[in-house]
Amino acid sequence: MKLALAIFLLLAIIIFASKWAGALASRYHQPAVFGEILIGVLLGPTLINLLGWPIFQFHGSNEVVTEFVVLLAEVGVLLLMFVAGLETDFNSLLKVGRPAFWGAIGGVLGPFLLGFGIFLLFAGFLGGERHLWFTAIFVGTILTATSVSISAQTLIELGKLRTRPGLTILGAAVIDDILGILILSLVVAFAPSDLVGEGKQILHDYVVAWIEAAGVSGPMVSILSVVTLVIMMVAFFVLGVILFRTVALRFVKWFGQLPVSEGLLAGALVVALLYGWAAEFLGSVAAITGSYMFGLLIANFSNLREEIEPRLHSITYSLFVPIFFVSIGLMTDLRTVFLPAGKSPTEYWAGIGFALLVVFFAIISKIGGVYIGAVTQGMKKLEAFQASVGMVSRGEVGLIIASIGLSSGVIDSEIFSVMVFMVLITTLVTPPLLRWAFSLTPPNEKNGGDGGSPSGEAPPTAVAGPLTGGGS
Amino acid sequence: MKLALAIFLLLAIIIFASKWAGALASRYHQPAVFGEILIGVLLGPTLINLLGWPIFQFHGSNEVVTEFVVLLAEVGVLLLMFVAGLETDFNSLLKVGRPAFWGAIGGVLGPFLLGFGIFLLFAGFLGGERHLWFTAIFVGTILTATSVSISAQTLIELGKLRTRPGLTILGAAVIDDILGILILSLVVAFAPSDLVGEGKQILHDYVVAWIEAAGVSGPMVSILSVVTLVIMMVAFFVLGVILFRTVALRFVKWFGQLPVSEGLLAGALVVALLYGWAAEFLGSVAAITGSYMFGLLIANFSNLREEIEPRLHSITYSLFVPIFFVSIGLMTDLRTVFLPAGKSPTEYWAGIGFALLVVFFAIISKIGGVYIGAVTQGMKKLEAFQASVGMVSRGEVGLIIASIGLSSGVIDSEIFSVMVFMVLITTLVTPPLLRWAFSLTPPNEKNGGDGGSPSGEAPPTAVAGPLTGGGS
Repeated sequence: MKLALAIFLLLAIIIFASKWAGALASRYHQPAVFGEILIGVLLGPTLINLLGWPIFQFHGSNEVVTEFVVLLAEVGVLLLMFVAGLETDFNSLLKVGRPAFWGAIGGVLGPFLLGFGIFLLFAGFLGGERHLWFTAIFVGTILTATSVSISAQTLIELGKLRTRPGLTILGAAVIDDILGILILSLVVAFAPSDLVGEGKQILHDYVVAWIEAAGVSGPMVSILSVVTLVIMMVAFFVLGVILFRTVALRFVKWFGQLPVSEGLLAGALVVALLYGWAAEFLGSVAAITGSYMFGLLIANFSNLREEIEPRLHSITYSLFVPIFFVSIGLMTDLRTVFLPAGKSPTEYWAGIGFALLVVFFAIISKIGGVYIGAVTQGMKKLEAFQASVGMVSRGEVGLIIASIGLSSGVIDSEIFSVMVFMVLITTLVTPPLLRWAFSLTPPNEKNGGDGGSPSGEAPPTAVAGPLTGGGS
Repeated sequence: MKLALAIFLLLAIIIFASKWAGALASRYHQPAVFGEILIGVLLGPTLINLLGWPIFQFHGSNEVVTEFVVLLAEVGVLLLMFVAGLETDFNSLLKVGRPAFWGAIGGVLGPFLLGFGIFLLFAGFLGGERHLWFTAIFVGTILTATSVSISAQTLIELGKLRTRPGLTILGAAVIDDILGILILSLVVAFAPSDLVGEGKQILHDYVVAWIEAAGVSGPMVSILSVVTLVIMMVAFFVLGVILFRTVALRFVKWFGQLPVSEGLLAGALVVALLYGWAAEFLGSVAAITGSYMFGLLIANFSNLREEIEPRLHSITYSLFVPIFFVSIGLMTDLRTVFLPAGKSPTEYWAGIGFALLVVFFAIISKIGGVYIGAVTQGMKKLEAFQASVGMVSRGEVGLIIASIGLSSGVIDSEIFSVMVFMVLITTLVTPPLLRWAFSLTPPNEKNGGDGGSPSGEAPPTAVAGPLTGGGS
């Protein structure tokens, strides 16, 4: 079969399998994302090993096809984070108030510290060589990011989205994503130079050479190169905002008025790609930070969101997101986690223990962190607990950070597989946990907490006025 | 730089350059497509040699990046032809009547025969080894396909789209595309087995082995394998229609009702990819024939077009079409046509003569063919001439057929470059020729031909009723 034909067939299989599994999961009252990630894992080396099929072999291996899928997924992730930025609303963030804000902070700190700790605890038994501290920080980072869509969907089913815990979850999850991406940026910026990709290596060498050329030597070189990196990071964020207001936004608007088909979307894509490229190549932060930031700026400081977002949403969710989930699955091999092949008994049991403890602490630490953050800001205990349970599920952002770690060599494929397993399980347990947590509300307080008034259940016909004013 | 970062930068450059050049061409009253193709050629080896830049070299060459762009362009072409199918309206075809139908037939036959003839005439002088007759047929095929968008835009500017020549151009161009794709399918099906890609080779071997296993030998094997191929082709078209009505349409509708994001578009993409794959792998016709056919069926035998087409249009025209035009440019080197390096004087002048004659006869043969076809069906001579001039410009479909020929080895890169040159020039000359042709209409017949009534110019304020009922 010709290469292009194999690609057509592969894309058809990927889109079909991903969407169908998502729908199947929904039918059994599970989050669609759970089905989409699981089918990706099943299509990968864990079970079906799709790319091992003879039709996807060219020149004796599946390298060509794999590289195409992975690159397409990377382009897709950039678009996905651009869409995520477009869908982030600063204004509703400002409204959620202190419990949500400090809940989010707690919900980031808790998983980060516990993830960091568990990895350090197990690292000695897991085998393989690593930059111990740095990988620990990265594992902690992967555990931070909440996926709000799963909780939001469950809350809608329960009719609880407009309650105080519901709104807290929505607000805190957004802050959570931003914090996760910021931590990722710090981690990427300070990665040991032998760990990260070619570009970074060049950047480091360049900075070091530049400092040495100025006559500096000894430990001062390291210190100055770290300072230079921090300056580059900060400069990227500051320049990113300034250039948005002075150049990028005008460029997109100008492009949108050109007499060509789809000029506006084309202009937005050009800038999103350039922000992504510049973020990593010039600003020393992750590429997705750049496209996310541009989406955020478009959504909150222009009136172009309504025109750009729907056009991009269609193709992102019908083509690129399925490719991303399947590419995650192609890099995951749960057998390396749960089968003893090629390991000493210590490594085997340490691996399983690590996987189970990561999942357990990913759940506990998120609930604990959010709960403490929210309760100390005066939220009722039960509501804080409900909000914290709604933050348990991890999703795309965690997977994206993990795949960046894998491709740059910070985490190996076994730890990557554990992280995918963690995302799967947290996604799976959130809806039932959330239903249970909301069932704890005493009957006379049901639907309460909206605006602070424990008003009891509104009669089913009287939902028009007060509920629509509920702030979201 | 990391590979993914290089891809982000490259895509940003491609989208920007393509759309900007299109707009620039429009400003100077040239077709946008002309600018988009020209910038692709300029970015290619002809001038800038974008992929020769150091940042796009990985493992010592630009092979990885080139392969990604070319594969993405092939996926894009599949989507582009799917959109083209979605935008093809059978009903308006039935309305255009015999002059448009026979004009289209003439406009296909003329260029096909002349292209075939010129190539045979020059083949001996051009150097290189070829399957003489087969390549001649392919060159003829590339010359057939009209690009209606350029003429349509010019006619709108002139206010002549609703005239009889205008409607004839619209109808004939659609028939033209379908005929071009059908000829391509025949050409691909009957390609000598050593000329076309791996898949076809396997298919041929498979068919031959199957026939030999039945105890047949000698020349009967060739005859039977040709018969088998014809049966497979016909079976593809018949089964394609039957499966659309029984399975494919129901599948897309079912997928559209699944509780997942963008299910309808995802389902349509799955089937479009599968029709493309099956067309070439099972049906032995070109992949684009399959996706075009599926688009045609959706548009004319379902009510899903309004939901699918706009969503696909955005990303196709903002991302995939620019990539396609630039990938065409990357494969084109006009220097091999117009510079004498490495050629004998005979080859050099034969090459230039061939290029110029191809362009000249591409124009003449289309005008002649359409004119004869239309006039013999009773169209007025001047109107037939105006319609024929509007059919001169070639566009995407010609380039797509040419790139299929290049990738399967039927035409070499020099002939490919001549074909791109031909598309550029015919695109460039059509708008001025068309303006001139319409200026020949005597003043008392201006805006005439609409429904046959030479009504004279309507007063500017009275455009509501009669014009909107004009059939398109």
